[in-house]
Amino acid sequence: MDNNREEQHEEGRRKQPTREEWARNFSEWFDKILDEAEIVDFRYPLKGAGVWRPFGFKIRKYTYEILRALHDQTGHEETLFPLLIPEGEFLKEAQHIRGFEEQVYWVTRGGSDELEVPLVLRPTSETSIYPMYNLWVRSHADLPLKLYQVVSTFRYETRHTRPLLRVRELTSFKEAHTVHASFEELEQQVQEAVGIYANFFDELGVPYLITRRPEWDKFAGAEYSIAFDTILPDGRTLQIGTVHNLGTNFAKAFDIKFETVNGQSEYVYQSCYGISERCIAASLIVHGDDHGLVLPPKVAPIQVIFIPILFAGLEQAINETTDKLMNELKHENIRVAVDRSEKTPGAKFYWWEKRGVPVRVEIGPKDLENYTVTLVRRDTLFREIVPQTEATTRITDLLVRLAQNIKQREAEFLQSRIHRVETLEDARKVIEQRIGVVEVPWCGLEECGLSLEEELTGSVLGTPEDLQRPQEVEGVCFACDKRATTIMRFARTY
Amino acid sequence: MDNNREEQHEEGRRKQPTREEWARNFSEWFDKILDEAEIVDFRYPLKGAGVWRPFGFKIRKYTYEILRALHDQTGHEETLFPLLIPEGEFLKEAQHIRGFEEQVYWVTRGGSDELEVPLVLRPTSETSIYPMYNLWVRSHADLPLKLYQVVSTFRYETRHTRPLLRVRELTSFKEAHTVHASFEELEQQVQEAVGIYANFFDELGVPYLITRRPEWDKFAGAEYSIAFDTILPDGRTLQIGTVHNLGTNFAKAFDIKFETVNGQSEYVYQSCYGISERCIAASLIVHGDDHGLVLPPKVAPIQVIFIPILFAGLEQAINETTDKLMNELKHENIRVAVDRSEKTPGAKFYWWEKRGVPVRVEIGPKDLENYTVTLVRRDTLFREIVPQTEATTRITDLLVRLAQNIKQREAEFLQSRIHRVETLEDARKVIEQRIGVVEVPWCGLEECGLSLEEELTGSVLGTPEDLQRPQEVEGVCFACDKRATTIMRFARTY
Repeated sequence: MDNNREEQHEEGRRKQPTREEWARNFSEWFDKILDEAEIVDFRYPLKGAGVWRPFGFKIRKYTYEILRALHDQTGHEETLFPLLIPEGEFLKEAQHIRGFEEQVYWVTRGGSDELEVPLVLRPTSETSIYPMYNLWVRSHADLPLKLYQVVSTFRYETRHTRPLLRVRELTSFKEAHTVHASFEELEQQVQEAVGIYANFFDELGVPYLITRRPEWDKFAGAEYSIAFDTILPDGRTLQIGTVHNLGTNFAKAFDIKFETVNGQSEYVYQSCYGISERCIAASLIVHGDDHGLVLPPKVAPIQVIFIPILFAGLEQAINETTDKLMNELKHENIRVAVDRSEKTPGAKFYWWEKRGVPVRVEIGPKDLENYTVTLVRRDTLFREIVPQTEATTRITDLLVRLAQNIKQREAEFLQSRIHRVETLEDARKVIEQRIGVVEVPWCGLEECGLSLEEELTGSVLGTPEDLQRPQEVEGVCFACDKRATTIMRFARTY
Repeated sequence: MDNNREEQHEEGRRKQPTREEWARNFSEWFDKILDEAEIVDFRYPLKGAGVWRPFGFKIRKYTYEILRALHDQTGHEETLFPLLIPEGEFLKEAQHIRGFEEQVYWVTRGGSDELEVPLVLRPTSETSIYPMYNLWVRSHADLPLKLYQVVSTFRYETRHTRPLLRVRELTSFKEAHTVHASFEELEQQVQEAVGIYANFFDELGVPYLITRRPEWDKFAGAEYSIAFDTILPDGRTLQIGTVHNLGTNFAKAFDIKFETVNGQSEYVYQSCYGISERCIAASLIVHGDDHGLVLPPKVAPIQVIFIPILFAGLEQAINETTDKLMNELKHENIRVAVDRSEKTPGAKFYWWEKRGVPVRVEIGPKDLENYTVTLVRRDTLFREIVPQTEATTRITDLLVRLAQNIKQREAEFLQSRIHRVETLEDARKVIEQRIGVVEVPWCGLEECGLSLEEELTGSVLGTPEDLQRPQEVEGVCFACDKRATTIMRFARTY
């Protein structure tokens, strides 16, 4: 309870109006912070392709370590499949082709030879992986098969590209591909995948909506698709993860069969699920503020930055205290660094706040005199003075509380941006005013869904998978006035 | 000394003749073991592209963790650059183009559009990275810049492809690219890189020769190239790493300049160095034997495999002892697993020996009675019985000694395959009989080098960088009979 009161107290110090203002211009803010904090550089001479710089690469590394661990703990194994897909394999699943054919890059030449078989740069790896599943899966004893990889995928993107949000080379596509002996097992796997993704975004403190995409917006080749979306500060949603039940569609296209316990030959059941670098973009955006990034401690390349405030005659004592405390933290496996550059303390504060380092430790002459250090937490910028003897405990604790606080803060923001409305008019207002997601009653018919999408000038997200009983909705479909059977979510999307 | 005697004793138990026989057919052995131990699968429908399976992927992961750590410890930072290179960038350095133009894949189409600017799949990343160095490097304060990445690169390979040895998609290319303010600093960097690679292969226990490639065989665009080669059991050499001094060649092509301390604008000095999955191939091949793989403990996915030998009535006691010892080893961060499958003990021994697990622990009824366990080390297949109370210490120690033993064994093999000869005739015999590398005196002229290459029907490796004074060679050049100034190495190569 004490902690809670402290949090609230600290919260009060945050300059809320500035955050509101910041939110309206977050798009420019994002491009600028990616550059200034040296996360990625998209000035590469191919539009929509960027470079992960060392600081950004480390954030990526720690983020994907969490994602990998969640997969490894649930019986997934990491692999690596080829990037180039021969035309014949790519063309095997009809719906899949239709979904991707306008978006793929084609390799047609090798040296000065025209290739006999053109090759596709994987836009996603179903057609690269499933020819091998055809070879590997023989019997029920080979199932379930749960593999994943983290790779670059490619989209020939003709729309306006945006760093980390809409790119031509997705550099960080984690895709899992599972194979099962029955539809029931497959359904369980889909639920496991949803659970893994929920855990992952919880770890990042990124809030999300889980929806089942409607038939007309599911993954090309899937039975159905479940998506994770977050809401960005401008009220638009960003898809940050998808889970697909593929049924036997690809099994039939790639002839993947297994011998059942009874000796019969049957098609396997498959799922796939993916997360791209948008998970990093989301984490940077939802936690950010007008001072710059606010990194969740688990993915921060530097978790604690020390700024010794040197005064003549005290340099040695201050440096020694700094080294001593840094060593204590290192011993606790906390990632620390010290800024001993020539910059002024103010310039250092500004620089490390921009880069989102969770905790700053200042050690100056007063601290030396009083055997204290000054801690500043990045989320609230709250400053406190603690005894040196307690510094390590307090910092460790602060990292935990910071992670909890930003998670809760962003969860509340998301909740405040979901609107249940009574009329089509009110629904339209939500979309037009860009204040988030609107939930409307829906009869379940595709034509009504499509007509609502047009009426609202928003995109359909789908039906909630994260509510207890979405089907117990009151009221009538906003499109046809017939009895509603579920809720449908709409929003402006990225 | 005691350890040494023990090693020799154990060595004696190794079936040496079998290893000789095995060596002659190692090429078939290699393809087979990659498949049977589930390392990679090259049945992918594009020739020269393969899949890393879970067990192989883990070997790759641990191998590259060593390589990454060696780079991180020496001030390199990891990054990730785009795969697609616009034609204009690729064509900037004239020699580089000539070296690679017949080997690159071209992307010419996106969806149904012809691309206005064709894109190259990086065959190596100089022309992808240096446009960014042009933007990032401004002043001497930005230098040195030492970045690296681990990526897929592509070669349109028209020759016969071989798993992990000659492929079209190199899945594991670690390439470092450094920038410096002076030629002296650059030379130091080249030496640092050579040191890093030497440390890396030492960690893997893979022996190597270091040679400076001759002018006519250096990297396209380099001032000079230094290469690491190992010798495979069939006497042919395999290039496993290269370090290139690029001078200012790429700086001029990509206009990378910096402001010196004196305010002048000068071209930077650059180096690059790379290692591919051939490092894994080399490690698998040089340590292997007729039983299968022998994995260096540091890269073994499973370092210790437990085989409980169950007898009726003793199952519980044996399983409990197994669990207890496994937990002790886990506590020491040793990667352990247990085989409780239905297979016979013999079948289990065979399976885990094939997969190269360094140490096997058998626990049977006799062991239970005597409070012992039976240890079998994979390199010598030597079996010893040790008290349960000492098991963890003995196993930990055994892993260290096994690593040392295979390193020393392979180093001796390599030394025995380097031949200093007196006559051209003897040199030719070395090449023809495929017994390794031949060192011959050379005058230093390119035409003599080329003529020797032809005479010997071998390829030139270059001049030694790993000998104290190669220039103090006696005798005359085998091609022109003039005074030799150095040694030149020749071999059949992969």
